[in-house]
Amino acid sequence: MKINGVAYRTIWPDPAATGLVRIIDQRQLPHRFVLEEIRSAHAMAVAIREMHVRGAPLIGAAAAWGMALAVQSSGFDGAGDWPARLENAAQELKSTRPTAVNLAWAVDRMLAVGQMCGDAGHAGLRLREEAQRICDDNVAACAAIGRHGLRLIEEIAARKGGAPVNILTHCNAGWLACVDHGTATAPIYAAHNAGLSVHVWVDETRPRNQGAKLTAWELGEHGVPHTLVPDNAGGHLMQHGLVDLCLVGADRVTRQGDAANKIGTYLKALAAADNGVPFYVALPASTIDWSLRDGVCEIPIESRAEEEVQFVDGLTAEGELRSVRICPQNTRAANYGFDVTPARLLAGLITERGICPATAAGLLVLFPERRAGGAA
Amino acid sequence: MKINGVAYRTIWPDPAATGLVRIIDQRQLPHRFVLEEIRSAHAMAVAIREMHVRGAPLIGAAAAWGMALAVQSSGFDGAGDWPARLENAAQELKSTRPTAVNLAWAVDRMLAVGQMCGDAGHAGLRLREEAQRICDDNVAACAAIGRHGLRLIEEIAARKGGAPVNILTHCNAGWLACVDHGTATAPIYAAHNAGLSVHVWVDETRPRNQGAKLTAWELGEHGVPHTLVPDNAGGHLMQHGLVDLCLVGADRVTRQGDAANKIGTYLKALAAADNGVPFYVALPASTIDWSLRDGVCEIPIESRAEEEVQFVDGLTAEGELRSVRICPQNTRAANYGFDVTPARLLAGLITERGICPATAAGLLVLFPERRAGGAA
Repeated sequence: MKINGVAYRTIWPDPAATGLVRIIDQRQLPHRFVLEEIRSAHAMAVAIREMHVRGAPLIGAAAAWGMALAVQSSGFDGAGDWPARLENAAQELKSTRPTAVNLAWAVDRMLAVGQMCGDAGHAGLRLREEAQRICDDNVAACAAIGRHGLRLIEEIAARKGGAPVNILTHCNAGWLACVDHGTATAPIYAAHNAGLSVHVWVDETRPRNQGAKLTAWELGEHGVPHTLVPDNAGGHLMQHGLVDLCLVGADRVTRQGDAANKIGTYLKALAAADNGVPFYVALPASTIDWSLRDGVCEIPIESRAEEEVQFVDGLTAEGELRSVRICPQNTRAANYGFDVTPARLLAGLITERGICPATAAGLLVLFPERRAGGAA
Repeated sequence: MKINGVAYRTIWPDPAATGLVRIIDQRQLPHRFVLEEIRSAHAMAVAIREMHVRGAPLIGAAAAWGMALAVQSSGFDGAGDWPARLENAAQELKSTRPTAVNLAWAVDRMLAVGQMCGDAGHAGLRLREEAQRICDDNVAACAAIGRHGLRLIEEIAARKGGAPVNILTHCNAGWLACVDHGTATAPIYAAHNAGLSVHVWVDETRPRNQGAKLTAWELGEHGVPHTLVPDNAGGHLMQHGLVDLCLVGADRVTRQGDAANKIGTYLKALAAADNGVPFYVALPASTIDWSLRDGVCEIPIESRAEEEVQFVDGLTAEGELRSVRICPQNTRAANYGFDVTPARLLAGLITERGICPATAAGLLVLFPERRAGGAA
């Protein structure tokens, strides 16, 4: 998508230097647009852990590039030979964030490619190709999610006779969370680009404010009308008919359709169910964890530093980036990164293969190869 | 309750100067403890509108003192005679905050007292007495709410065999929201003082962060164990059995038990219902609006300035109070102050007369004088 008129992806290799990958340092958005150069698997692991990059599909893509860098980064990623560096990188990258399944999925895919290569030169080439393929596949998947989700928005727009379709989203499942287009935002961009009138309620998304910082920014850059609201507001909006559709992303979805997403998603899904508002989760297939069934019991939920709750950062009137403490000095805080929305609260899942009910049977219609006894 | 070992109420008249009332300027908490001197109804209206004082019972008490000051404040509240000043003060005070019913209730009660007085001297004396009575009644009501609510906590504590009772609360319905004790916090203080082990999950309560700033502070000052959580966390906590009881206050409750409270309360009540966690609203009778039935349709919801969403204030590492912008410069925001929790989601109402189901019939058992044809 475009920033100030220039088309970007969220991650890309330097075309001239094989050991260099660039990312957007999302910690500085929306106040500063800063590119960061990554030269090793370790540096990529730090960027993922400290959330320079975030969003399930993007951290999968970032981990893939981290694996590619490991082969070429002797001196950065330790002195061992390249297969050892690749194994170490896989371990380090997988340990950075526990909830999103895309991360392990991408690392394992890269590891399998590496293990088929005979020498460092061949491995470097093949791993770069594979990382690029993971990125390109994600872009294609998000574009397809946009096409499928667009139909939902078109139906509501037709019913409303052209009045704006009000869509609520939580966190950032935008193009900044993916390689391009986004998951939850892909249908929104598709609708906006098709000339439909849409308006997005952007949940602030405490504690890290990805909605206020990232979703508001990327929608604004693309010209999509939107309004920032505190995470507390969604229930009131839905009670009063101000939300036509909820669209969120996911960090991991089980085979029965339970969806882990940014903490607070479950609360919005409850409000949607209570008010008859359709609530959809948009995700590429790589977000599905076919090994899990009951999301509330089985998906590990990341606990993050309490400082993320105790402090808020932003821009002062003088244009400085500052962090301010919002609670008493000795107040302790808990910081669960995600919650799980049970499938029963979802109107459906929007994937690159189409829209399906959030049920085991619904998913298997789109992914028949996952049936017991099916191929692959 | 005590601050640094010294007992305070949230509002009190100067014992020596009849035209002077003191409040705690709650905008500066928890970072600074500042008392403010109020000398006119107009100054009190400003203090209420700009939230130097907040919380439904406290703004009722503050409005009462504002009315008392109006009679004695010639020169501050305009040049008219005292009955005209009292009428003007009533209008100005009622216009400050639209949702809490205690405000209009207290102003009307003061107006009725004033209208029975023959001269300024008599009116001044009687209005001061009445404002003090409203404060003392609120303290007694909150203490009674504490005694009734304590029984709920004792039952859970007995069931848990002495393990800490985990209570989630939203916003600040603490002693800072009342004259003393609090509404939602009254049972918590009563339990803590009785030696029961309680632990409070304190919702941050965006956008004004009353939980992070006020509830965390007053629980900390009193020594009650607590943990600050983002507003998004409650659903996850309840899914995982980490909440035994939800206790919140209210700004207005209808005769059928629908409860307007700080925006986001409804989302927590949905999560409580979905997970079988009892959710109680604690309120003095003055919070009940007997003229209303359907809270979602009938209770007016205050819209506040969008800057409260766009900016967060707190303390820098250098100890300065600063405000930081958390979103892009041109992002618009919506700021609904309250939402309405339908009575069907409530386990009950805790009033100074006891606990009742959140139904019209339940309320009439405690308040038989409100039956059609009943007294008063």
